[in-house]
Amino acid sequence: MEKDTSIPEDLKLAVLEKIKPTEAERKILTAVQEELAAEVKAAAEKLCVADIFVKMVGSAARGTWLSGTHDIDVFISFPEETSREELERRGMEIAREVAKKAEHAEDRHAEHPYLNIVFKGFDVDLVPCFRVESACQLKSAVDRTPFHNEFVKTHIKGREDDVLLMKQFMRGGGVYGSELKTQGFSGYLTELLIIHYGSFENTVKAACLWKPGKKIDIMQHSEMEHTEPLVMVDPTDPKRNVAAALSLDKFCMFMDHCREFMKSPGLNFFFPPPLSPLEDREFLEKLESRKSSQLAIVFKTPDIVDDVLYPQLYKMEQAAAALLHEYDFSVIKTGVWSGKPETVVMLELISGTLPNVKKRIGPPVWVREHAEKFKAKYEGAENVFGGYIEGGKYVFEIQRKYPTAKGLLENQLLNCSLGKQVKSSVSAGFEVIEDAEICRLKDPDFRVFLRKWV
Amino acid sequence: MEKDTSIPEDLKLAVLEKIKPTEAERKILTAVQEELAAEVKAAAEKLCVADIFVKMVGSAARGTWLSGTHDIDVFISFPEETSREELERRGMEIAREVAKKAEHAEDRHAEHPYLNIVFKGFDVDLVPCFRVESACQLKSAVDRTPFHNEFVKTHIKGREDDVLLMKQFMRGGGVYGSELKTQGFSGYLTELLIIHYGSFENTVKAACLWKPGKKIDIMQHSEMEHTEPLVMVDPTDPKRNVAAALSLDKFCMFMDHCREFMKSPGLNFFFPPPLSPLEDREFLEKLESRKSSQLAIVFKTPDIVDDVLYPQLYKMEQAAAALLHEYDFSVIKTGVWSGKPETVVMLELISGTLPNVKKRIGPPVWVREHAEKFKAKYEGAENVFGGYIEGGKYVFEIQRKYPTAKGLLENQLLNCSLGKQVKSSVSAGFEVIEDAEICRLKDPDFRVFLRKWV
Repeated sequence: MEKDTSIPEDLKLAVLEKIKPTEAERKILTAVQEELAAEVKAAAEKLCVADIFVKMVGSAARGTWLSGTHDIDVFISFPEETSREELERRGMEIAREVAKKAEHAEDRHAEHPYLNIVFKGFDVDLVPCFRVESACQLKSAVDRTPFHNEFVKTHIKGREDDVLLMKQFMRGGGVYGSELKTQGFSGYLTELLIIHYGSFENTVKAACLWKPGKKIDIMQHSEMEHTEPLVMVDPTDPKRNVAAALSLDKFCMFMDHCREFMKSPGLNFFFPPPLSPLEDREFLEKLESRKSSQLAIVFKTPDIVDDVLYPQLYKMEQAAAALLHEYDFSVIKTGVWSGKPETVVMLELISGTLPNVKKRIGPPVWVREHAEKFKAKYEGAENVFGGYIEGGKYVFEIQRKYPTAKGLLENQLLNCSLGKQVKSSVSAGFEVIEDAEICRLKDPDFRVFLRKWV
Repeated sequence: MEKDTSIPEDLKLAVLEKIKPTEAERKILTAVQEELAAEVKAAAEKLCVADIFVKMVGSAARGTWLSGTHDIDVFISFPEETSREELERRGMEIAREVAKKAEHAEDRHAEHPYLNIVFKGFDVDLVPCFRVESACQLKSAVDRTPFHNEFVKTHIKGREDDVLLMKQFMRGGGVYGSELKTQGFSGYLTELLIIHYGSFENTVKAACLWKPGKKIDIMQHSEMEHTEPLVMVDPTDPKRNVAAALSLDKFCMFMDHCREFMKSPGLNFFFPPPLSPLEDREFLEKLESRKSSQLAIVFKTPDIVDDVLYPQLYKMEQAAAALLHEYDFSVIKTGVWSGKPETVVMLELISGTLPNVKKRIGPPVWVREHAEKFKAKYEGAENVFGGYIEGGKYVFEIQRKYPTAKGLLENQLLNCSLGKQVKSSVSAGFEVIEDAEICRLKDPDFRVFLRKWV
């Protein structure tokens, strides 16, 4: 634990003033929730579906939602013995009936289909699920949510403000959100941290001392071995790690955020000043001072949800770096940015060009068959500069196939292992632009990304 | 063993015709040897040194000398009980007396002093030594030579031509000579190979199949473990490896030379066409086609014998490469050339410049004390581009101290571990020249080196 420093009360109050829903907000939320519940029941009756329950889950239902967010999760639960086919069909029928009164509706798909609607300005998920006895008997992952809801509701009482503070603090540190894009902390994980450590302050102090492999088991009901950086055993299911989606880097960024905060607590850890888009002039100055090579692979963003898109982008980022490395280019760092209509994979290299000459090291001279085959292949061949023996091995100086990173990517990127939709989009066309050419990309959000990049 | 291919007799004859001393040469040699023996005896008498013997050793005495070479080794042996001081003093007195009739004389020093003279056009070493019973009881390394002489003389009879062929063949392959510059095969080692394998042809065929660690023990009197690529146990001293000076690369170059020769035997393996000096125009063309960076460290050649100079140059070559590597430069190859008045250490790099930005990877975030110290050092410091967390570690993008290889060498070369005389010469002044600037070095022998280099 940290020494006696503690977080000033007035700082917490100042934060809460900005993020805690007002009484008016609460009233509106409650009214909309009740209205939605009534709509679902009415729809079920109209469609002659008996024996369904409506359940409000998520942070809105638990009093741990941040002011300004407008998310409501409505679970429509069917008896356990319902067939999956019937659950999906009838559940979606009810949802579509409700959606008739919505401003917007969109089919989505997790383990089974659900409907996302905009209803009176709220972002509402209408999710059919099974009603099971305990979280261990799940028929699908989504059925877990009501159990989470129950657990949090019964344990969080009186500490809702700590959850709000922690969520905003994590947002400020860029580690909030368990989507595959962010790989950070989910709302449920945040709530469990507060339940375990007792308060925002205790959690922050404890996290300063975390190490990867940190395990928290509130119910003390798991002996499982995990390999993730943080293991938060689900109180409603001993086999599940609530923090499974948290990446090592987000785990470390949170620790770093906590340590810096404890050194000098301030509002900026909750509300970092927004970054302005990097201007052309600034980018060109950075190029000049860094003198490295910047490459951007640009292609049309596939029309798929972020949770499908980002894993494919991260895979492509790794594949491009591995390709460059294989062909002797030194990668300083990689990154991805995705917007509409374009996606960019950024690569910073020590140099985007390599000499024509490449040193090919062969087998030891005494491994005769291989050595002679190697020598026969290169000796006197076209585009071979010369050969010699070094460290007991044949070495030939050959013509490098791809002396520029741009040429390599243009020729070989599509031979890399890429995700389905990204591959199809990249196949349809991509461009590799370098250094000052990158000024062509004007999207302000990309330019914010670029400010962090250089 | 190779399949039935054998070396054409007329090829061997054609080589021997060029390298085997003529009857006239032999007569002159014998006459000069006898004259020298008489001179030594006369000098000893004049100086009242009794009980010395004169012994002709070396290839001239064994009939294995190449036509055109003019080396005679005269050993002046003293009784074993002579003190080292007396041996050196009286031995050199005799040698100096003989030298009065020489065209030129020069003091040299191995384990003890000896005199090198030019006598009737021959290069003669006058070497005082102890007369011991067997090579195992040596009082100094040089005392071994008479035993080698005896062994070879009694075993080589009838195979002198094979020795001549092998010596010339090794010359052609650039592997003949056991000086520290060459690190190849000594004359004695060559003779022992012929004694062991029986002929030039058998040796060549056997060498095609060598592997490092190859051990030959003609007298079968050694159980010693050695780590050298080739172990030729001295028939006169089981503790000594005659091939100790042979480097792995020269061992392999010889194997390669043998294999190529067996594929298509020809005079060129004995007498490779001489290389012409590389012209400026050719060098510039090579620079253009290779597109790598060529660096030459140029300094005044220290006035010391090759056996002292070359180990220091090789050490400097390694040290410069290690320095460049430590500062992120990629070295393709290194080489040394030494002439009068200048010595050149050549370095070929992927690039002689690196970006200003350098990625400094720190400790894992959870190793708190180190991680915080690392972060405190770089965060917000001058010349730091930025920082982030990658793979659980703090990473900072800092200003590279030496973005050019030339600047690095100019600043840090003298902090490398260098040999005594080379260090003193480099300290007195050196220059690092790059690419086209290297055309400034006009020495034709350097230009021959350069032809092999690019």
